[in-house]
Amino acid sequence: MSNLIPEPAVKRMPMYYRYMQKLETEGRIYISSRELAELTGLTASQVRQDMNFFGSTGRQGCGYPVAEIRYDLGRLLGLDREQSFIIVGMGNLGMALVHYEPLAEKGFVLSAAFDNAEEKIGMCVGGIAIQPMNEIENVVKMQSVKLAVLTLPSNTAQEVGERLYQAGIRGFWNFAPVDLYLPQDASIVNVHLDASLEMLSYRMAHADLF
Amino acid sequence: MSNLIPEPAVKRMPMYYRYMQKLETEGRIYISSRELAELTGLTASQVRQDMNFFGSTGRQGCGYPVAEIRYDLGRLLGLDREQSFIIVGMGNLGMALVHYEPLAEKGFVLSAAFDNAEEKIGMCVGGIAIQPMNEIENVVKMQSVKLAVLTLPSNTAQEVGERLYQAGIRGFWNFAPVDLYLPQDASIVNVHLDASLEMLSYRMAHADLF
Repeated sequence: MSNLIPEPAVKRMPMYYRYMQKLETEGRIYISSRELAELTGLTASQVRQDMNFFGSTGRQGCGYPVAEIRYDLGRLLGLDREQSFIIVGMGNLGMALVHYEPLAEKGFVLSAAFDNAEEKIGMCVGGIAIQPMNEIENVVKMQSVKLAVLTLPSNTAQEVGERLYQAGIRGFWNFAPVDLYLPQDASIVNVHLDASLEMLSYRMAHADLF
Repeated sequence: MSNLIPEPAVKRMPMYYRYMQKLETEGRIYISSRELAELTGLTASQVRQDMNFFGSTGRQGCGYPVAEIRYDLGRLLGLDREQSFIIVGMGNLGMALVHYEPLAEKGFVLSAAFDNAEEKIGMCVGGIAIQPMNEIENVVKMQSVKLAVLTLPSNTAQEVGERLYQAGIRGFWNFAPVDLYLPQDASIVNVHLDASLEMLSYRMAHADLF
């Protein structure tokens, strides 16, 4: 399982994890590649290939063991343990993420929040007081936190990203609508919220074909 | 170009569009599949297959014509015209999306915003006054708007989704952390914000392999 899983399969892992969680809750023991294909909108052979990448093999005539795959995927995704994160930029999006339940449910624990606006500093959100940005280096080092959410304006994201990297952050969940460029050992996900709206726009325009 | 493009290629369309926009701004006329592969992290043969799905052919020895592909992709994605949308649920996430610049840049125009909280009704955001939810049917019909953003709590998303469908909405950009189930002629994108964080978590755990 320590082999590199191809990027497109990695992108599908959270989706599989979500369906496996749901199936487990519903009491399902096994699921066939065909049924998984129907759920996910993929082909059955794609599902079998993905499962193979994740190190999971089906039982002939039964299908894939739901609980086992949910467990394996959770471990691969690092969801089997708590992970602390900080949020930098406490505008509306930062505030929304503090209260976004799936994060806590998946073991992501908010450990600090930063903003530069004076009226926000000291404000309590999600049980945590917002701190000024010049505290970032101290806090990141003291708490040895590795994961940061960037909810910043486009023009400051890169600069703050570099500061966070210097302080020891290695995972960047970036919501600013610009790509971050950081050294190779940084893991970056640039979230392009509008991309999924564009996909929706495509589907609406071609709804008769679906 | 009216043939159905396979779902995985559709999912990559917004990303290609983004890179083509960037390349066009930089004055690039052609780009090779190899260079596109490097930019996107895909293989060159995957890029060629995708371009083929999008109806674009490269020129031998030159590569793909940047402006032409940007134009074609924009048309496929429905970005060549303005599209009105409404937001239902003006919490922090709704507020954040009103001010999320890429939406307006791509031609998505906010035409109405709704919430049930009395203290929010009448409040002006992005040049628009928040209206009570019982105005939804009137407004959707009067403005014949087809696209709605749902930034609602999990427990009301499905019910409000059904109301919006009844009123004539056919495109649903759903941020509530539950999947929406609506009739077949509805186009739905359930946004799972946490999925990209899980991918980041995977990459951080396996950073030595990248």
